[in-house]
This record gives sequence, structure tokens and C-alpha cells, in this order.
Amino acid sequence: MSIRSGSATALGAVLAILASPVLADPLPSWNEGATKAAIIEFVESVTDPALDSYVPEADRVATFDNDGTLWAEQPFYFQGIYALDVLKKKAEADPSILSSDVLKAAASGDIKGATAKGVEGLIEVGNISHAGMTVDQFQKDAREWLTTATHPTTGMHYADMTYQPMLELLSYLRDEGFTTYIVSGGGADFLRSFAQEAYGIPPAQVVGTEGDTKYEEVDGKMVLMKRGGVSFIDDKEGKPVGISRHIGQRPIFVAGNSDGDFAMLEYATSGEGPAFGLIVHHTDADREFAYDREGHIGVLSRGLDEAEKRGWHLVDMKNDWARIWSVPK
Amino acid sequence: MSIRSGSATALGAVLAILASPVLADPLPSWNEGATKAAIIEFVESVTDPALDSYVPEADRVATFDNDGTLWAEQPFYFQGIYALDVLKKKAEADPSILSSDVLKAAASGDIKGATAKGVEGLIEVGNISHAGMTVDQFQKDAREWLTTATHPTTGMHYADMTYQPMLELLSYLRDEGFTTYIVSGGGADFLRSFAQEAYGIPPAQVVGTEGDTKYEEVDGKMVLMKRGGVSFIDDKEGKPVGISRHIGQRPIFVAGNSDGDFAMLEYATSGEGPAFGLIVHHTDADREFAYDREGHIGVLSRGLDEAEKRGWHLVDMKNDWARIWSVPK
Repeated sequence: MSIRSGSATALGAVLAILASPVLADPLPSWNEGATKAAIIEFVESVTDPALDSYVPEADRVATFDNDGTLWAEQPFYFQGIYALDVLKKKAEADPSILSSDVLKAAASGDIKGATAKGVEGLIEVGNISHAGMTVDQFQKDAREWLTTATHPTTGMHYADMTYQPMLELLSYLRDEGFTTYIVSGGGADFLRSFAQEAYGIPPAQVVGTEGDTKYEEVDGKMVLMKRGGVSFIDDKEGKPVGISRHIGQRPIFVAGNSDGDFAMLEYATSGEGPAFGLIVHHTDADREFAYDREGHIGVLSRGLDEAEKRGWHLVDMKNDWARIWSVPK
Repeated sequence: MSIRSGSATALGAVLAILASPVLADPLPSWNEGATKAAIIEFVESVTDPALDSYVPEADRVATFDNDGTLWAEQPFYFQGIYALDVLKKKAEADPSILSSDVLKAAASGDIKGATAKGVEGLIEVGNISHAGMTVDQFQKDAREWLTTATHPTTGMHYADMTYQPMLELLSYLRDEGFTTYIVSGGGADFLRSFAQEAYGIPPAQVVGTEGDTKYEEVDGKMVLMKRGGVSFIDDKEGKPVGISRHIGQRPIFVAGNSDGDFAMLEYATSGEGPAFGLIVHHTDADREFAYDREGHIGVLSRGLDEAEKRGWHLVDMKNDWARIWSVPK
């Protein structure tokens, strides 16, 4: 081999390395370790046509919970904080709308009082805060709030409190031929107000709790009006139902963080063929929040007990993630 | 110019023409005429970035009704005929399930008797025919039926009675960056049993009437069980609601055939920006069926009255379509 052809070969090899997507780290905000290795191993196992574990692109469905999985959820679901803010503003204009103790507590920002009755209280608030406007108006207002209101402890805009490692995971999966969906207990209309910008997930790939909407004429234009009331709750055993209704396929990659995601994880990983379950475990009190078995939201107990047995992978936020927020504080 | 370079130029021009997708007819089964021209003109107007009417790919949402729009619906919705067949089989094993006049009529194949009570009767039949099995089992059974049972007048398999010109339209739109959805009064689970194969439309792009499903354990496996009962009817004013729930965007291209599609057509064409409404008018008694203002299904009356005023385009099946069926009889 002449020096000349040797150089050309070496140059070719260098160019091949630089151009190779395999050798670029697809998850730079994930520390090296078992979790990151398991994710990459799974993705490679289902995307290599030479392997028995290969899954065609059409079946590469990935579903992600949102609150506590793609962005933070403390001290309370951000949509709940938004609902309280809207209620407060509405009550300033018309105090008579505060017709119950739950609503009075909610309008004063008292989350504990507003949720004392559980999800019923939230629905009562939502029936006022998320009603009487079109879906478009609601989404415009929500988007405005998410990018201007600030979180009580971090001081960040809510829209900036998404997790950088999870954004990388979403992109990585899409680059590898997966279709990524949100499957959240949060409201679908609310999620769609920011999912495209925050996560690269278009409206049609958002599955969430559904408010009652009515098709009607307003000022000569046909619109979809939010009426209050909830027609579908996409949480717990509702998540596999929501997946069946909207996606019509069993996911092969599921990420969640609480026992509200247990059924979705179970559904995905109890089908035929390969599947991957991921649980984001909130272990980082310094950079984010630390919670699991106790608390008013995001409780993770059964998931912790059964993850190992079921082959689900726990993300230890403190040790697995080199960085938390997509936008630095 | 030398002969040689002249030849090269001519060859280049020929190659450019052969390679040009614009010059290949995207709708070969559509006769030349106003309808075909209007479709192509609209698509070109929203896909040319140089024009004010340009619509980015993410917003190129197209929704299609199914029964009477993508495939035939006479003498009765094929899903209805399927339901009657299933009921008949179940009643042979256990006659006691025929506990009402509607069910007795249905099991004897008497469509008129089964639908005398309207949609309520169909739901009553569906509560037996579409219940007590998993979504997967149901879809397998439906697919089997569609490809083996034969239509009473054409003798064709139901799965073959899709309209070739509409298949070309779906492909054309997708080639031009549209995402194509079914938005049908038919059952979503039923539609998903054949939509990918018949139309190239994946399960997640099917919006339809939704039966109640429950997530439960059967033989140690977690499944989605069809329970009977209907949780959402995707027809008439329900179609814009279904679009909002599933797609979260206003479509810019809508095709239907009956007044059940009126609201969906109206919704799409009353938004901001360009939109196209198409109504398949069943005018071909020889090759398909001729019907509009009268009948028990697929009634098109208000749509006929208002199409011109609203700028919707009527497909005259007899004259606009060179071929009807995707599979020759």
C-alpha cells in the first residue's frame, strides 16, 4: 500500500467516524451508567434489522407521561397552579363564582384546601378556569402563562422546567424511527399549547384527559368551545384505554414517574416482543425535588416495589442526570 | 452550439421531464374536469412556498369520512352488516341473547327492522356483536370477515370495495406533505382493522366512534376488553369534536359524502386561511349506487343545497371517476 492510498484510507475512516451518528453520544446529559446503557442497548436491539428483536418503524411507539417525567410537578401540577391563577383572576372580577369552600381555597392559592376532596376539587376548579372559551383562546392563554408566570421556588418560567435528559431521549428515539407520544393525566388541550415547542411533539401525538367541548357558532365563526366537565380521565387504568383509543397500538417504550403510570408501563411490557419501561425516580433534592412513597402528588410506591421484578429501569435523577433543566436557571 | 452539446441539453430536458413528479398524473383514475383540476390547483397553492397561500407541512391536515367516501356503504354500512353476521352466529349458539325485537330482526338479517329505532338499535346490536372480546381479537375477526364475506349485490369482498380514485387522492396528498386521517362515524377499532392495508392510514390516524374498553387481566395477560356501550359518537357535530380531541388542529382538506360530514366540512372551511371541501356524490347507479336526498343512510341534502355557496366541490362519481373500485370486480 502506498503512503498516498494509506492516507486516503485514514482520511476516509476519520470522515466516517465524524459522520457516524452511532458514535455521537445521543444522550449527552445522561451520565454513563446502567440506565443510559440499557436505553441505548434496547434501542439498538429493536432497530437492527439483522436481529430477531428488530421492530419495524411502524410499531416503534413510545409513550411518555408528562408531569414529573418530562417536566417538574412540584409543589403541584403546573396545570393546577395555572387553574388556580385563572380562578383568582376571574373571582376578582366576579367574587360570586366562589360558591364552595374548594373554590374559595383555590382562589386564595391554597392548594391543600383546593385538593382536599381529591380530583373532584380539581374538576370543580377546572369547570370554571377551563371553561367558557374556545380551545384556541384557552391554549393562547395557557401558553402566555407558561412563559411569563414564575415557579414559586425555582423562580423559573414553568415552560423552562422541562428535563434536558428527557428531551434528548425523545429526540434520540425519533432519530431512531420511533413515534413519540405524550400520555398524560393532564389536559390534552393544555398539553397541546406547548408540547410542539417544548418537546417536538405535535398536537395529534398528545393523549390526555379530555374536557367536554362543543362545536358551535360564535360571532359567525364555527369554533370548539370548552364547556367545563371532563369526558375522559387519562390516568392510571385510563392510560392503556387512552392509548388504545388514540394510538391503537401497544407501545414498546414507556416512560413514567408515578404509580399513575403503572398500568401504562405494565400494558407495554406485558405484550409480545421487546418492550422497555422507564421510571424517573425523583432523588435530587438539591437540583430538583426528592419524593416517592409519600406526598400529595406523584406518589411512586408500587412502581418502586415491582420495578426490578418487572424489568423496568429506574432513573436515579441525582446520579443518572448530569443536567436537569432544559433552560439553565 | 455544437450538435454534441445540443444533444446533451435535449437529453437533460428529457431526463428532467421523466424525473418530474409534477408531470406524472397523480390522479389517473380521475377524468379531466373541474373537480380534478380544483384538487390539483388547491394542493399546488398550499405547497408552493413562493405563494401567500402556502401552508407548512405540519398544518397540512386532511380528514376523510370512510363510509360512502373511501368505500361503499350500500345496502348498509359494512360494519353494520358485519355486526348482524356476528349476532346471527352468536344467536345460533345461544338463542336467548335475542331479547328484543331489534335483536331478533338483526339476527335474521333484517336491516330495516334492526334500524327501525335508529342508531339506538345499532348500539343494541353492537353491545352484543362488538363486546366480550379483546380489541385485538375483534380486529382479527373483522379483518377475516372483510376479506372473506361477500357483498350481496356486487359479490365482491367488502375489503375490495374501496374507491380507487380516493386511494389515489390519499396518496397524492401524502406525497405532497399532508397527513391523512379517517374521521368516521364507524367504530375506530373496526376501522383500524383494515385502514393501514386498505388506505395506508396507520391506527393513530383513525378517528371514529369509540366503544367502551376496559383494561383488565385475562389469562395472566393485560388486555383491552371491549365491553359494549359507546363512549363517543364521531358523527355530525361530533366530527369536529373528534378532530379536536384526536388531532388538535383544524383540517385544511376534508372529504365526505353525506350530511353527517356537514359539520366537519364547515369546520375546516370556516377557519383562517385556505381550505378545501370535497363531497362524493353518488351518481353512478351502474357501476356503484345512486342516492342522495332520500334513503336510510348516507343522506346528502343540506350538503347539496349549500355546496356551491360554501365553495365545496362535488364529485360526480359517474363523470369524474374513470374507475370505481380499487380491485376490479
